[in-house]
Formats: sequence, C-alpha cells, structure tokens
Amino acid sequence: MSKTKVGIVGYGTIGKRVADAVMLQDDMELIGVTAHSYNYRMISAQTKNIPMYRLLGAEDLNGLKIEGAFEDMLKKVDIIIDCSPKKGGAENKEKYYIPNKIKAIFQGGEKSKVADVSFTAQCNYDEAVGKDYIRVVSCNTTGLCRTLNAIKSKYGIEAVHATMIRRGADPWDIRHGPINAIIPELELPSHHGPDVQTVLHGMPIFTTALSVSTTLMHLHAITVDCKETPDVNEVIKLFEKTTRVRLVDNASAVRSTAEIMEFAKDLGRLRSDMPEIVVWKEAIGVTGKKLLYLQAIHQESDVVCENIDAIRAAMGFKDAKESIEKTNKALGIDYCKQCI
Amino acid sequence: MSKTKVGIVGYGTIGKRVADAVMLQDDMELIGVTAHSYNYRMISAQTKNIPMYRLLGAEDLNGLKIEGAFEDMLKKVDIIIDCSPKKGGAENKEKYYIPNKIKAIFQGGEKSKVADVSFTAQCNYDEAVGKDYIRVVSCNTTGLCRTLNAIKSKYGIEAVHATMIRRGADPWDIRHGPINAIIPELELPSHHGPDVQTVLHGMPIFTTALSVSTTLMHLHAITVDCKETPDVNEVIKLFEKTTRVRLVDNASAVRSTAEIMEFAKDLGRLRSDMPEIVVWKEAIGVTGKKLLYLQAIHQESDVVCENIDAIRAAMGFKDAKESIEKTNKALGIDYCKQCI
Amino acid sequence: MSKTKVGIVGYGTIGKRVADAVMLQDDMELIGVTAHSYNYRMISAQTKNIPMYRLLGAEDLNGLKIEGAFEDMLKKVDIIIDCSPKKGGAENKEKYYIPNKIKAIFQGGEKSKVADVSFTAQCNYDEAVGKDYIRVVSCNTTGLCRTLNAIKSKYGIEAVHATMIRRGADPWDIRHGPINAIIPELELPSHHGPDVQTVLHGMPIFTTALSVSTTLMHLHAITVDCKETPDVNEVIKLFEKTTRVRLVDNASAVRSTAEIMEFAKDLGRLRSDMPEIVVWKEAIGVTGKKLLYLQAIHQESDVVCENIDAIRAAMGFKDAKESIEKTNKALGIDYCKQCI
Amino acid sequence: MSKTKVGIVGYGTIGKRVADAVMLQDDMELIGVTAHSYNYRMISAQTKNIPMYRLLGAEDLNGLKIEGAFEDMLKKVDIIIDCSPKKGGAENKEKYYIPNKIKAIFQGGEKSKVADVSFTAQCNYDEAVGKDYIRVVSCNTTGLCRTLNAIKSKYGIEAVHATMIRRGADPWDIRHGPINAIIPELELPSHHGPDVQTVLHGMPIFTTALSVSTTLMHLHAITVDCKETPDVNEVIKLFEKTTRVRLVDNASAVRSTAEIMEFAKDLGRLRSDMPEIVVWKEAIGVTGKKLLYLQAIHQESDVVCENIDAIRAAMGFKDAKESIEKTNKALGIDYCKQCI
Repeated sequence: MSKTKVGIVGYGTIGKRVADAVMLQDDMELIGVTAHSYNYRMISAQTKNIPMYRLLGAEDLNGLKIEGAFEDMLKKVDIIIDCSPKKGGAENKEKYYIPNKIKAIFQGGEKSKVADVSFTAQCNYDEAVGKDYIRVVSCNTTGLCRTLNAIKSKYGIEAVHATMIRRGADPWDIRHGPINAIIPELELPSHHGPDVQTVLHGMPIFTTALSVSTTLMHLHAITVDCKETPDVNEVIKLFEKTTRVRLVDNASAVRSTAEIMEFAKDLGRLRSDMPEIVVWKEAIGVTGKKLLYLQAIHQESDVVCENIDAIRAAMGFKDAKESIEKTNKALGIDYCKQCI
Repeated sequence: MSKTKVGIVGYGTIGKRVADAVMLQDDMELIGVTAHSYNYRMISAQTKNIPMYRLLGAEDLNGLKIEGAFEDMLKKVDIIIDCSPKKGGAENKEKYYIPNKIKAIFQGGEKSKVADVSFTAQCNYDEAVGKDYIRVVSCNTTGLCRTLNAIKSKYGIEAVHATMIRRGADPWDIRHGPINAIIPELELPSHHGPDVQTVLHGMPIFTTALSVSTTLMHLHAITVDCKETPDVNEVIKLFEKTTRVRLVDNASAVRSTAEIMEFAKDLGRLRSDMPEIVVWKEAIGVTGKKLLYLQAIHQESDVVCENIDAIRAAMGFKDAKESIEKTNKALGIDYCKQCI
Repeated sequence: MSKTKVGIVGYGTIGKRVADAVMLQDDMELIGVTAHSYNYRMISAQTKNIPMYRLLGAEDLNGLKIEGAFEDMLKKVDIIIDCSPKKGGAENKEKYYIPNKIKAIFQGGEKSKVADVSFTAQCNYDEAVGKDYIRVVSCNTTGLCRTLNAIKSKYGIEAVHATMIRRGADPWDIRHGPINAIIPELELPSHHGPDVQTVLHGMPIFTTALSVSTTLMHLHAITVDCKETPDVNEVIKLFEKTTRVRLVDNASAVRSTAEIMEFAKDLGRLRSDMPEIVVWKEAIGVTGKKLLYLQAIHQESDVVCENIDAIRAAMGFKDAKESIEKTNKALGIDYCKQCI
Repeated sequence: MSKTKVGIVGYGTIGKRVADAVMLQDDMELIGVTAHSYNYRMISAQTKNIPMYRLLGAEDLNGLKIEGAFEDMLKKVDIIIDCSPKKGGAENKEKYYIPNKIKAIFQGGEKSKVADVSFTAQCNYDEAVGKDYIRVVSCNTTGLCRTLNAIKSKYGIEAVHATMIRRGADPWDIRHGPINAIIPELELPSHHGPDVQTVLHGMPIFTTALSVSTTLMHLHAITVDCKETPDVNEVIKLFEKTTRVRLVDNASAVRSTAEIMEFAKDLGRLRSDMPEIVVWKEAIGVTGKKLLYLQAIHQESDVVCENIDAIRAAMGFKDAKESIEKTNKALGIDYCKQCI
C-alpha cells in the first residue's frame, strides 16, 4: 500500500505536533511543512530534517534550508493538514485546496461550515470517511466529546452544564495574561456548547467559560443530568475503558494540572504532552441522577491524534477502531493508563 | 444609649477590617485588639491609636504600646469578635468566653457547632437575635447565601450546583501557591454546600471547588434549577434591589476580578475593599428553568459587615433591616451601585 | 493668593491619581479631566464630582455628565498635566499647548526633548522653576533618582549598575503577561540609565532590565561604586532622612512587594498606594567601596507627588523644600516612616 | 571493562533525572533507586523497569514492585548518588556510606564539608579524581561556575556581582508561592557567592537573590569587572566554545525563559530539559572593563550531567575532557548549539 502524502500548513503549537505524529505513522509520509519566519520552531524542524516550504509573505528565513514555495508542496501531497491561525484555513481552502482538488483537514479555530464534517474520532469517525474536508474540533470540544460520548452511551443524557476554566496563554506565550485575575467570558452560552453539537448532534449542553492565570491545561467542571442513575464505580470503569481518557487519583499524588504535566514528563512523552483527557477519580460524584466530574485538557496535544485519524478517514480508510488503535500505538496514547 | 464594648481577638485579614468597621459605628466602641507579634499590621494599628492587649504566648512585641494582657481586655468588653486562625475560636470559647460569660462572634473557619446560629444578616438575622454565640459563615458561603436567598424568594429553588474557583492565596501571602496550576479539591461535595445549609436550611446545593493562581477574589459559577421559570432582566432587577450585591457589566469595562478590585480602589473604599458580591450582567443566563450566573467574592472583606450586624443581633437589637442599613451606611456598602 | 487652575488630559493610572492629588492641594483647583470612553474610572470620577470634558475622538460616553469639549477645558486652565499614552503628550503640545500658550507637565513615557527640563522634585526642582514644559520622569527613573541623589551627596558616585526587575502588567491589566516566564529586555543598557541622566546630569549609570509575572511593584537591585567607603548604618540613617524614601525590615514582616502593598492598605493610603521608594534594611550591604541595596517602586503612584511639585515649579513657586513638604503633608507621604 | 554499579537515593527532581542519565551511559549500570512513597514518579520508574528498594520509614508503597530494602541495594553498588532532601545526605553518609565503605556523590543542598570536594566538571574535575565523597554544587552555583570559569580564563576577574532572580517553585510544586510578589532574600551576600568559591577558589564574587512568581528557570544578571577589557563578539565566541553553555538570540525568537523551555521541548530533549546554561546574545554588554550578561538556569536539569561526571571522577577515571564529551553525547548536551 502506498503511503498517504501529507503536507502541513502552519508550523505552530498544533502543526509541529502533527508533523511529528505523521512521521510516526507507517502509512503516512510527511512531504513538508510551511515556513513563515525564522525562529526556534523552524530550527528544530530543520534538525529533524523536515522539508520546509516558503509561505507566501514569509519573512526573512535567515538561512533555513527551503525546498521550494508553498505551491510546490501542494503539488506533491494527497492531503493538507491546515493548522493556520484562525480563519486562515477557510481562506486557504478557497484559494488553494479547492482549485487544486486537494483534501484538507482543518482545526477547531475555523467555523464548522469550512468542512463537510466536524470530527472526534471515537465519536463520529464513520461520518468522515471519504470526505474531502474534515474539521478536527478544538481542544476543549474534543475533551467534552470524548467523555460525554461515553456517558451518553451508558446512561443517556438529559442535560449537560460545563464550566470551562481556561488557561490564559500557552506555556511559550509571554505576551498574554492575565497575571493575576479571573476573567469570565461574558457570553452565554460560551461557544463550546454549540461546538460540541457539531460532533454529538443534539447534545443538550450549556457551557460557561472563564480564563485564569495558568499556562498548563484547561479544566472542565461538568454536571450531567443522566437519564439513568449513574454509579461512581461504574463511571470509573467506563472511563477506564474509554480510549484517550485517563484516570488519575490522589493516591498517586496527581492532584493538579501541574502534576499531570509532570507525570507526562516522567512517562517520557514526546514534548512532554498528555494527549488523553484526564479525569480525577475522587472528583467523580453522583447526586440523584446528576453525575459530576472534573477533567483536565492539555490544549496543545489532545487533538493531534484526531488529525491523524482524520487523515485516514478522509483517505477512505473505513475501520474507526483500527485507525484509533494504530494511532494510539504509534503515539503511545493510552500507554500505562493503569500501570499498577 | 450606651455603646456596645467590642474586643477583637486575632488581628489578621478579618480582624483588622472588623476593627476599622467597629470604629465607624456610632453604637459601638472598640475596646481593643490582641497583639501576637510585632509586624506591620500592629504598627498600622498603633498609628490608628487602637488599644492593644498581649495574647498569651505572644512573641516579642518590640516596642508596641501594650495596654495589658488579653484577660484585661476581656474584663472591659460586652462581646468578643473572635478572628483567630481555624479552631482557635472553639478553644477560646471553652477557655475564656464561657467562664467569663462573654458573648462572642466566630468566623467561618470554626465548625458550625461552636455557635448557636450560623449567620448571614440578610438571610437569617432574626434567628440570631439575643444569642450568645454567633458564627459568621465564610466568605464563600456568605456570597452564596446572599444571592441564593434572593433567587429562592422570587423563583423557588429545586437544586443548586456551584463550581467555586478559589484564589490560591491572599494578596499579602507569599508562601502559598499555586504559581502555575489548577488544583481541584478532591472531595465531593466541597464543604461549601453543607455550610450554606447552616444558614439557608434545607437548601438543595451541591458544590465543587478548585484553586487557581490568583490572589484577588474567588469566583462562583452557579447553576440554579428554579421552581418557576426565571427571566434574565427580572433577575438583574432582583440583584439590583438585593443589598450587598453589586452588578457590573462589560460596558463599564469591569470584565474581570482585577478590574473589580481596581474599581474598588477608584471608589476610595477603605483598604480598597469590595464587600458586595459582584455579579456580571452579561453572564446571567437562563435555559429552561435553569438560571446561570457568575459571581465574584472579595474573600478579605465580604464578611466584615456581617460581623457588625452579628454584634447587634447578639446584643438583642431586633430590627434586621435597620441594622443592615446602619452598617451599610457607615461602611459605604451599596454606595454607587447604580451610579449612572 | 489665587489657586492654580489645573486640567488633566488622560484619566488612566497616573491621571486619576494626579486628579485626586490636585484636589487635596489648597493652592490648586481641579478644573477638569478628559473623558475618552465610558468605563469604571469615569464612573468613579463622576461620583467624586470631577468635571469631565470630551476628548476629540471620544467613544460613546453613555450617560456620563460632560461639561464640554476638551478645548473648553483648555480655555479655563493655567496648566495641563498631560497623562496621555506614550507620545500623545508631544502631539498635544504641538497641537494645543503651544498655540494656546498653556504650560504643561508631561510624563516619563514622552521623550525628554518634549520638555524644557526632566524633573524629580528632590533632585532638580530649581531647574524647573518658571519653565513652561516640564517632564516628570518615569516611575523607575524617579525611584533611581531619589536614592542615588542621596548617596551621591554623601559618598560620591564612581559608577552605578542597576538590574530592574519590572512588573509584567499593572494590577487592572488583564491582557498582558507573562503568566509564567522571566523576560529579559534585550537591549543594553536599558533606557533607564540614560533617563536618569536627564535628571542627575552625568551620573555614570548602566542598567539592565527584565520583566516578571507580577503586577504589584518593580524591584531594583542596585550596586553603587562609591567614591568614599560607605557604612551600612550610616546609609540607613541617610535613607531615613531622605524624603519619599521609606525603609522597611524583616522585623516588621515586610519581606516582599506583596507585604509592602498590604502595609499601604493598612495605613489607609488613598487607593492603597505606596508613593515612597521602599528600601529593605537587611538588603543594604557594603563590600569595599561598593554599596548594594534593593528598592521597590510602586509604579502607579510614585510620580504623583512629582507632578504636584512640577505644577508649582512651572508656576514660578521658588522654594523646593516648601513645595515638597506641602505636597507630602497633603498626600500623607513620609507619614509613619518610623512609627516605632 | 566492568560497568560502575550505581544506586540512587532519593527519587525526586534530581534523582529521577540522574537515574535516566545513568541508564544512558555505556560504562554504568543502574542498580536501583529508593522508594519512599507511592506516587506518579515511582509509577513512571516502574514502567521503565527501574529496580526499587524500600527506604527505611517508607509509606505504603501500594503495589509497587519492590526488590528489597535500602540496605540490600547498598550491598550491590559501587557508588551512591545521594539526592535526598537537604541534610539527608550528611546523615546517610554517617549512617550508611562510611560504615559500608561506599563512595557517594552529594547534591548542592548539603553543606560543602560533607564531601572531599565541591564539583563542576568543566572547572575542577581533576580535583575530584579518586575522591570518595564529591558534592555536585547547586543548579545556580553550577551555572555561575560554568560561565565565570570561561571568562576568568580569558580576561581574568577582579570582581563579580550577580543578582539571582529565582523561580518561586518547581513546575510540579503547587504548594509554594509567591503568586504575585517579588521576594528579596534578606541576607547579604546570598549563599550563592560563597558556594561558587568552593569550586572556583578565591573567586571575588558577591551575590544578591530574590524570588519571583515563575516555575520555569532561574535568571542571573551578572556584572564582571574583568582584568582585561572584554569585547562583546569575543565573549560570544568564548561562550560558543564553552561546553554546557548555549547562546540564544532574539532572531530565533527565544526571548524569555518560557521560549527556552519550549525550544527544549521542540528539540525532543528528555523530560523537555535544557541542561545547558543559556545566555542571550543581545544581553551581553561591555562598558569599560565591566562585562554584563544574563543567563538562564534550568534548575531541574543542569546538574544531572555533573553527577555523571562526578561518578567517573570518583571511580578514578582521569580524563576530564573525555568524561564530559562522553556524558554530553549520551545526553544530547551541546546538541544543535549552532544549528544554522
């Protein structure tokens, strides 16, 4: 079988991770990534011998080894993973992907209409098979979809309310705050609820969001009104069986987002990432038919595996389970979920 | 009418504020505060000519002007406001207040059984009239009681779920973190729910809590299942009329806890405090019978006025409304709630 | 004597404080401040009955009580305190102050050439007497000038090196970071050194700067190569006698910038400000002819009193000492510097 | 040649990294590490098949696979790397290492007298050859030694002053602050200066220290009075040639400690560490004979390679250069220092 030729547009937080992930798949070949400016990310890419193509309007690339122009890369690929900043994907689609008849995967910063389907592999892979344009939803939406999909399948869902406590900026981002504040998002519902519905159609969810002074992870406080009465131990077992969800507990001293990220470092993860959605055992509670839980989202990495599965779906690979397992194995996802 | 003679035990975050507040009441006299060690708080007290009494076990007081021992202060007062660190109040009660037949007000760090009644003035002042021992509930519980009591009176309440996003440490506290993490409280429910029930008896509330890297205020994300369908504009009016609750909005650029505290500075508040519970207009939402809102709690100051009212209740003053208005006026509470 | 009629352009961090300070002077009258948009600062101004004048290009003022246009204010004043954002002052000078023959005080964000003299009252008041345009230097430069001027007068100075550890954003500023980083300023020397020389002519100073994740105060680590050997206790006495400099120590538990700001709150300062430059006793050290010390700068307030003195200098008031004392008394500066 | 059998006592921030590093050396064998409690670090160790030995007084180890008691490990090793919390090393030496005649490497938290020599490989490897007890100095001291040693060799040093801006807590440490403050260390000089002198004997250095609200790295602002006039470009070349020192610059967008750590992630470093001392090109300055520079220290990792070299020195391996190069190669140190 020939390998799928993948090009990546936008080599930032997500793009650089997807590039590494593509290189770890035995059914994919990384044709190249785009270069927009000279910086430590591109230097790192060069040390990994990743081919670089100059973006239109690129700044001085200062000695980086460039293979050609963006358009040259387009000619060589089967599919583009578009990791452009917000709305850049929609522009690229009109300008490049449609005219050149290239399939493309977009990220959650784009509006859902950019694509034929919004996507979380374990929820709706089948919908995406053979589609030309697939949108991997945002890190927060992906996290909500993974756990809510599991709960819905077991207990049914009447209503969901989630409070999203968002990190103020990414770890490398020194410009954005807040340094010392809690900032509510003054729109109700926040965009996350409607976005979940692009994957889990009809999910009755309402979300509130706010930002805090941390760079590491988002945290969701979720309340689900179930159709059937849930049980804490059953829910723990349910999440243990759910791929790309990881339980942690106080016993292992993983008491905060900081310790989750340290655990990821200790496990030797690539870039010290934690792509699984992390749920605290002790914070799962039931009161009547209400199920409460807290989950942490590593905003930089949870969608990377989704992009890999989306490539396979777009290229017509039909078996969701096989794709997910293949991706997980290549990336070390679900590794050591229950080490002891 | 003779003034109520008030002594304050514990001159920390709450104690120093209650001392200032007592001095602003025309029906109270501040007999003194206790000194435990030499520091900038005691130096400030001395510049205000507040009489200081040496606590048993006090460290070197280094030139502070001391009036006498703690026991000397006890002989001069009608009532003690006990602002000791956690559990210190219960010990003092057994050791000093009961033997000396002195009334006392305790803070929310004490267990509820320390007192005859747990107290939030606008909710259950009447229960506290004439009682010897009253417990002002914690800053978070006070905030929940103020707004939930108003909602209950108008719409009835089936169930409440609140996610409490707590400040990691007070502004002056340099030892405690987190510097960069979100820390869930791994007990369900958190203690806040049951604590609300000590004031609003039978309130069906479930709370989840977590801590973040900020010093300024707590923030509560609250979902109320009402008995009757609420309306956003009505709720805004309801909160406008509710004492010790203040609405802010995006139009006035108060978009975060940081800007709330800056507003308090600009208003010229004592110690730049914001004793009212602050609700964002744009974050009040209704979906079906569910009411959602976000409120910010200035952990250092919201209970100060409660202590003043608790003094009056303990001394047998019967009119809740008059006490609250008197306290508010003296402290500038509710001032400029709707300036324009 | 008629009062000096003062108008303030720019009602932000500095402008709002200067407005309050002008109102506290018995030889000045606050004619008004400019309004650029509706927000909590303007609401607070209105509650203080401060007349507001609409800036050209002002956004919707949403019910604020406006006295007239900016030009109307110009006609009523003797002098303008220009607290515009960076470079706005220079533009206003050309466009308004020169044509209207109005004296003006500028802030440290402007280049020094905007004014006839750069100013720190206790260093070079005399140079500014009768000048039309005076520039109060920035918070950091003001802090360096106050202490270096004192040291120079006693020991002479061969060379100064200062490392400026800057707060990342002001307390109300939720947009700027860093949340978790140290950011060096990649220019050598930083602009602070040359700026000191605009006040202390010929001072041999070299500065390095960096930003950290805090909102409260800047901190300077200063090394002075003195001409004569300094003595720690003498330096302590020198700073005790120097106006607008305050010593704190470990004994009083003022061990950090956070505790300095809490001390300011406890002292009942307006807006909880600490306008004095704060030096830690225990961090004053001598090794050979080198003097080392650490000082903290409250970036929001230390220049406020300088603006008041600058007004008097501009208006021809000749006695520096009298102006400084008058300003200090009105603003409570130097109050309780050695309480015990 | 038989491999050196290494045991590690204390599996925390340093211990876990040294364990990984030992496993990467072809002349060493990791016999085991000690287990004190069940937590994510030990779980991670188990997934790496690292043998664990129970520490005296260990808490419930909850299913971890334990090889035996601490004493059993002692019998199998040639040398111990003691990474105990402060002062634990000195106790262990008396109690275990001397009676059992086992060589040991200690960390910088121990007093220098615990060992025969304090150690930084590129400065004084030769002094340590064949010694029984070697102390690897702290992360900050190691950083100072690496760059000062290079400067001294080229220009000679008259005097050094360094301001150490320390991270408040490690990334995983959620208990310690400050959240929003700058905390000066109120002792002069800070302990770092004298500690440098245990390695660079007679170095005339004076240090000042303070802590800030960050978890990522320390930063040093260093002023060196050189004997001969330094030149900026020469210093850049000097640092380029100095092992375990890395230059970064604004051009590559590495403008802060946050971007340094992101660069380390992108380079694929183990645990995303940056063991080299990082110096900003643009922040190297010269004024007269004074050389100024800023350097960042990854507190968690810079001493790991020093422990490896210390093992070789203790075991009698005589060639410093060969040991350092061997260690560097195994750990990827100095990799891609000048990628382009």
